[in-house]
Amino acid sequence: MSQYWSKLVHDLDPYVPGEQPKDQRYIKLNTNECPYPPSPQALAAIHAAADETLRLYPDPNADELKDAIADYYGIARANIFVGNGSDEVLAHIFHGLLKHDAPILYPDISYSFYPVYATLYQIAARQIPLRDDFSLNLADYSGENGGIIFPNPNAPTGMAVGLDAIEQLLQANPNSVVVVDEAYVDFGAETAIPLVAKYPNLLVAQTFSKSRSLAGLRVGFAVGHPHLIEALERVKNSFNSYPLGRMAIAGAAAAMRDREYFEATRQKIIRTREATVQKLSALGFTVLSSAANFVFARPPEGNAEAVYLELKKRGVLVRYFNKPRINEYLRITIGTDYEMAEFLRIVADL
Amino acid sequence: MSQYWSKLVHDLDPYVPGEQPKDQRYIKLNTNECPYPPSPQALAAIHAAADETLRLYPDPNADELKDAIADYYGIARANIFVGNGSDEVLAHIFHGLLKHDAPILYPDISYSFYPVYATLYQIAARQIPLRDDFSLNLADYSGENGGIIFPNPNAPTGMAVGLDAIEQLLQANPNSVVVVDEAYVDFGAETAIPLVAKYPNLLVAQTFSKSRSLAGLRVGFAVGHPHLIEALERVKNSFNSYPLGRMAIAGAAAAMRDREYFEATRQKIIRTREATVQKLSALGFTVLSSAANFVFARPPEGNAEAVYLELKKRGVLVRYFNKPRINEYLRITIGTDYEMAEFLRIVADL
Repeated sequence: MSQYWSKLVHDLDPYVPGEQPKDQRYIKLNTNECPYPPSPQALAAIHAAADETLRLYPDPNADELKDAIADYYGIARANIFVGNGSDEVLAHIFHGLLKHDAPILYPDISYSFYPVYATLYQIAARQIPLRDDFSLNLADYSGENGGIIFPNPNAPTGMAVGLDAIEQLLQANPNSVVVVDEAYVDFGAETAIPLVAKYPNLLVAQTFSKSRSLAGLRVGFAVGHPHLIEALERVKNSFNSYPLGRMAIAGAAAAMRDREYFEATRQKIIRTREATVQKLSALGFTVLSSAANFVFARPPEGNAEAVYLELKKRGVLVRYFNKPRINEYLRITIGTDYEMAEFLRIVADL
Repeated sequence: MSQYWSKLVHDLDPYVPGEQPKDQRYIKLNTNECPYPPSPQALAAIHAAADETLRLYPDPNADELKDAIADYYGIARANIFVGNGSDEVLAHIFHGLLKHDAPILYPDISYSFYPVYATLYQIAARQIPLRDDFSLNLADYSGENGGIIFPNPNAPTGMAVGLDAIEQLLQANPNSVVVVDEAYVDFGAETAIPLVAKYPNLLVAQTFSKSRSLAGLRVGFAVGHPHLIEALERVKNSFNSYPLGRMAIAGAAAAMRDREYFEATRQKIIRTREATVQKLSALGFTVLSSAANFVFARPPEGNAEAVYLELKKRGVLVRYFNKPRINEYLRITIGTDYEMAEFLRIVADL
C-alpha cells in the first residue's frame, strides 16, 4: 500500500505461474512445457539473428512472422496480430475488445489469468459454471454480454469442444467478440481459425510456448477479422512499438515453417498422453478426457494436495490448484516417455 | 471503427516510431540506435542461451538480470523492475503509478509516447512548455499533480538538467511520483539513481537499446524505492508473467556486466558527437547542446522537412517531426565517424 500507487493497483490479485525451479533436478510436469526441444530450424534462425544487427530495432510489425503464420493457415497478414507471448496478446484483447458496459463471460474453471486481466482493466465478469462432469456447455453463454472467452481445450481440464458448438455460439452472439484461446489446440482439438472468414466476431489466440517448444522465446498470436486485428494493433502501438525482438521474430517464423518437426512432436505427445491416461486409470485415478499436453486427474483417495507434496519431495513437479471444485485434482503435463514412466513408478509407490 | 472495439480504442492516437527500412542501404541516423555492435560477451551469452532450454519458460522474475543491474549501480534487487523494452516499463509506470485524479505533468516537447500512454490509460495530462531556448525549467512543475515525467537528457532536444534541479523538484512534490526517463543518460548526463535511496517518490527508467546496443533484444528497467517497484510488479504480474525471454535475460545481464566495452562505446559516441556539432555549426546549422547520442539541429534556412526529404533521397535517414515549435529542426542520430562524414559531405552539398 502506498499513496503513490494508482487506485487500481490496490485491487490487483496477480496471476501466480507454476514454479520455475532454477536447478533442473526435477522432472518438471507443472507448466505444460513441451519436453522436446524446439525445431532445429528455429534454433538455427535464432543463432543467425543473434549478431551485430541486434543493435537495431526489430520490424515493429513483425511481417516475417505474420507471413509464416498466414502461409501455414492460408489466411492474410491483415488477419494476424502477434505479441510477446499469448499472455500479452490476451491482455490487449481484454483491453481493446472486451472492455464494454456489459460483463464478459468465461468458465468458472478455466485459465486463471482471465479474472486477473478483468481486474487490471476494470471489466465486469460473470463466471459460467462448467457442468458437473467438467464439460463446457457453450449453450450456457447467453444473455447480454461484453464478450466471451474460453480455452479450447479448456485448462486445467484438458477437455475440448467441437466447432459446431462454437459456430452456434458465434451465431447466438453476433454483437460480442468471442475469443477462443487455443493454447493447447494442437494436441487434439480442432482449430476455429477456418471460421474466421465467416464470423467477424471470432478471435482465435494461439501460442508458440506449447506445441512449438518455445516457451522461453515469448511469442503468441491472434487470428481474426481485420477489424478486430486493427483494434489490437492500435492498443499495441499505444503500449510498445516493438514487443517482439529480432530473435523472437526469426525463431518463431522458422518454427512455423518447419511443419514436419511440428507434426512429429505433437504426435509423440499425443501418444505418450494416451499411454499415461491408461496407466493412471489402472492405478485408480479418475482422468478427464484430454485433448491437451496435460491430463487432469484425481488420485484414488482425492488427496491431491498430499500427492502433489509427496511427488515434489521425490523430485516430480505437478500443478495443484487449491480452488473449489478442483482441489481433489492434479494437472500433470505430458513429458517424455521416460519422464512419464518415472512419474508413474513413483505414483504407484505412494 | 467497429462495434466490437472497446470505447478507448476509438480515442487512441498510436505512437509512430521512426522508419525501419528492411533493406540496409541507408545510413540510418533516425532512431537513435548505437552504430556499434553489442558487447561480444552479450552476444556470447545469447548464443549460449539459444539451446534446447528454450522449450522452458524463463525466470518470471529475471533475477540474473536484476542482480547484474543491482551490482552495477550498488543497489538491491528490490529496487529494480525489468521489462520488454523501456516502452513497456513506461507503460506500466503510467498505469500503476501515474493514474490519479490530478493531471500528470510533462514537457510540451518531449518523448512523443507520453501523451499516447496518457490516452491509453485515460490519464489527464498537462504539458508544460520548455523555455524558448528549449531548456527544461523544472521550477515550472508545481501545483497539484498526479505525477511528473520527463526525459533526461530530453528528447528530441538532447538537452540535460542537473541533479540539483531534480532534487529540488523531488522536494517540492513529495506526494507525487517523479519519473526521470534516462534513455540517453549514458551519453553525457548524470543519472539520478543515487537519489533513489533518499527520495521514495523517485523512479528512474533506463534502456538497453541505446548505450548498450541492444535495441533488437527489447530490454528496459526502472529503479526506485521497493514500494514503487512493488506497484510495477503487481501490474506486470497482472499483464504477462514472463515479459523477458531466456535470451533477453542472459544477453542484457552480460551486457551490464561488461563495463569496459560499455565505457569504450559511449566514449566513442560522445567524441563523434562533439566533432559533428562543430562541423554542423560550421555549416551554419543551429545545434542545441546535446548530452545524448543524437543532436537536434536547425538547417541554416530552417527548411528541415526539405532537408530531411533530400537526405532520404541520397540515402541518409534522419528524423523530422512535423510539430509546432520544432518543425524547423532535424534529429540526427550519432553514427560512426564514417557515417557522420558521409552525412556531413551530403549536407554540405545540398
